[in-house]
Amino acid sequence: MNRRMILYMPMQIIKVQALVMLLPAAISFFYREPCAWSFVICAAAALAFAFLAGWLIHPENKTIYAKEGFVIVALTWVLMSILGAVPFVLSGEIPRFVDALFETVSGFTTTGASILRDVERMSRGLLFWRSLTHWLGGMGILVFFMAIVNISDRPIHIMRAEMPGPIVGKLAPKARETAKILYMIYIALTLLEIIFLKVGGMSLFDASVHAMATAGTGGFGIKNDSVAGYSPYLQWVITVFMLLFGINFNIYFLLLMRNFRAVRSSGELWAYGGIFISATAVIALNLRGIYHSTSELIRQSAFQVSSVMTTTGFSTADFDRWPGLSKAVLLFLMLIGACAGSTAGGLKISRVLILLKAIHREFTKMLHPRSVTVLRLEGKTLDEDVISNTLTYFVIYCIITGGCFLLICLDKFNLETAVSATVACFNNIGPAFGAAGPAQNYAAFSDFSKLVLSAAMLLGRLEIFPLLLALSPVTWIKK
Amino acid sequence: MNRRMILYMPMQIIKVQALVMLLPAAISFFYREPCAWSFVICAAAALAFAFLAGWLIHPENKTIYAKEGFVIVALTWVLMSILGAVPFVLSGEIPRFVDALFETVSGFTTTGASILRDVERMSRGLLFWRSLTHWLGGMGILVFFMAIVNISDRPIHIMRAEMPGPIVGKLAPKARETAKILYMIYIALTLLEIIFLKVGGMSLFDASVHAMATAGTGGFGIKNDSVAGYSPYLQWVITVFMLLFGINFNIYFLLLMRNFRAVRSSGELWAYGGIFISATAVIALNLRGIYHSTSELIRQSAFQVSSVMTTTGFSTADFDRWPGLSKAVLLFLMLIGACAGSTAGGLKISRVLILLKAIHREFTKMLHPRSVTVLRLEGKTLDEDVISNTLTYFVIYCIITGGCFLLICLDKFNLETAVSATVACFNNIGPAFGAAGPAQNYAAFSDFSKLVLSAAMLLGRLEIFPLLLALSPVTWIKK
Repeated sequence: MNRRMILYMPMQIIKVQALVMLLPAAISFFYREPCAWSFVICAAAALAFAFLAGWLIHPENKTIYAKEGFVIVALTWVLMSILGAVPFVLSGEIPRFVDALFETVSGFTTTGASILRDVERMSRGLLFWRSLTHWLGGMGILVFFMAIVNISDRPIHIMRAEMPGPIVGKLAPKARETAKILYMIYIALTLLEIIFLKVGGMSLFDASVHAMATAGTGGFGIKNDSVAGYSPYLQWVITVFMLLFGINFNIYFLLLMRNFRAVRSSGELWAYGGIFISATAVIALNLRGIYHSTSELIRQSAFQVSSVMTTTGFSTADFDRWPGLSKAVLLFLMLIGACAGSTAGGLKISRVLILLKAIHREFTKMLHPRSVTVLRLEGKTLDEDVISNTLTYFVIYCIITGGCFLLICLDKFNLETAVSATVACFNNIGPAFGAAGPAQNYAAFSDFSKLVLSAAMLLGRLEIFPLLLALSPVTWIKK
Repeated sequence: MNRRMILYMPMQIIKVQALVMLLPAAISFFYREPCAWSFVICAAAALAFAFLAGWLIHPENKTIYAKEGFVIVALTWVLMSILGAVPFVLSGEIPRFVDALFETVSGFTTTGASILRDVERMSRGLLFWRSLTHWLGGMGILVFFMAIVNISDRPIHIMRAEMPGPIVGKLAPKARETAKILYMIYIALTLLEIIFLKVGGMSLFDASVHAMATAGTGGFGIKNDSVAGYSPYLQWVITVFMLLFGINFNIYFLLLMRNFRAVRSSGELWAYGGIFISATAVIALNLRGIYHSTSELIRQSAFQVSSVMTTTGFSTADFDRWPGLSKAVLLFLMLIGACAGSTAGGLKISRVLILLKAIHREFTKMLHPRSVTVLRLEGKTLDEDVISNTLTYFVIYCIITGGCFLLICLDKFNLETAVSATVACFNNIGPAFGAAGPAQNYAAFSDFSKLVLSAAMLLGRLEIFPLLLALSPVTWIKK
């Protein structure tokens, strides 16, 4: 175990985070808001601490293995959430630290669950910071760091631990090049959305904030009614971009490489489109008569489906008041999530496809006990290890959902609220049903519940293993 | 595919069932109830039909494989449910066939969910028949048939398909001997419970009916308040016997063989006891202050925990009105169920243990990618096929729960009712929460929902594969 690297790497990220905090500080200064100084003080203190700690720890040996990769990612995410919460508390706009931590974890994990009862009273600097956490958390802050600095001898272990999905595709022979390509696509798509929103009449500030929240599939809005007050054009732009950010980024790379054959044959992409269209159709049929016009009906259905399945969590309607079937469909979309290798949460469609293929193979095996079948995904043979890892992942995923749900049941809410809040936080969606519905917020939960949900958000974003392994004795005992 | 055997075997079971129906007929005659004739007519018609069909089909070749085993079990259970529903309709006591079918499927699958608003108005003959379906369904009617008749060249395939649990243990070298031993233990335990209930002041009729419902872990009562009106002694007797019938029957065989070492080292048995004690403790703590005395508090908690975890479904309290935490604990117990190789439903504890072991192995594998670990259960090495089968089973189990839940959401109930009714039927418990709570019944569900829940009960009792495989094209296409 390379303990020095485990402590050293998070310090490097703290430095990056401190520098990034100067961006909302600048915006606060521009709008002459007093909260500007909270960013500056926080950044300065963090920088000083990280430089001192980094200088003391400085590791000779920079080699890391899978073990260290998991622990580094887990520790980094916990530390950056704590640091990110400080400006909220210092500025006095979210006075209680537990609330600020919940909000920041919700930001970095691109969940978008908020404890703010009145988001419109927040200063612009802090609103920008909230959305920026989405953007940084979406693609992964360690991946971001990897793209700019040569961090370690084996950065792939960090990338594997931070990137979502059962298999991390290498776009380039070197992990660092892959990180660069990913962030370039990410930045380009975000800028494109800002332009489209600007064309629809949004101010540059509003457009940037919404584009960052869409890019990370986060869902923090700056209005109390989320996106409901914006024009149909703007709602459609956000619908489309939520879907775009839910696609595996490998697809964009393949498009850039003009490898259209590979794109066409992507099973995950087809399934993604199929799920979007069929869920929208079912919900639109279920909501007939609730909306005045067909165009509004389709827009409302498509927006909510896109928002929930990409685990963004913006809303244009209070879907908590929709009929049972629509709510049940949304609950399923929450669990499935979007494509692996995107910024979205949830189980990921490729995992669901692997699970379905494994079931089909099991059927065949029960009928023909001696048959041997090889599973394929996206044209490649699936390793048996990936299949058993995916099956086990699903079981752990269910156990964690169940465990969090039990802990949330200690709070005063009904079962519907408890289960949907758990699912919405663990899958990084944000709004749930009942007391945590789109027209409500998470302020009414107890401090204990907020901490449990924060842990659930981190577990969901990092896909369980890094956090659990960092806390597991198996990791720390010498073999 | 031995199609003749697939049709022939269910006809044999129909004959047995027709003969068994003469038992409630006799009871009806004894109490001079008019419903006696419905049993006689139904039995006579079924016997005539089954003899004719059996004579026409008569297979030369009695060899069957896994394929045929699954289809035979699926078809038998569907046919015997339809036949079992006829006396309810003929007697006019449950006039609608969908209701009668729901009640019979609920009986055979030992679910215990009822559509009767007033069970006390039913005639004794039909009440006895309801409980008898529990008793026959609990250990398996095909296994019963196997114990008395030499049915096929490879009866183990039928036994595997009908008996619950990931691995069917052979108690004797021959499947038929195993079936005999199982039924002997089953009969002895049932008689023992009748004696204990009789000692507590129950009439012979009441004691028999309750003992059969406990033995099959079914839960059909004969009072509108289930078991709440009986004395604490009787409630404790039922609590203990529910627990006894939730134990793997192999354990009783080991006890008879005086192999106490093997009993002591049974991981599943220890887990079963541990879950019972801890769930009772959590619920008792959660319910402090609701009940007058500590003894009542413990009795109520222990009864409900025992009833739900063994998937029996008797109740002495309206646990739908209990606080959220207690309800959540009960929901978990519903999912886990009791031991494999017992008459209980649910996932089964041994499956849960295999899943947990698989997770632990996955953790080790992620940290040490080249490590190879062998999993053990009850002192035996677990075959990799059993592990992957268990993991896949869990995934299918979740998908079916989700699918049924979606279909039940088409009905008019809230999410809590829809999800708990699905879980309670699929895991063969019976009472759920909300509109399907212990103080309510399933009468208010639509016909469509009743059929969906009936299918869920069959899927749960037969552990999914037989029914799905019988309906799957993979089974019927020639390779």
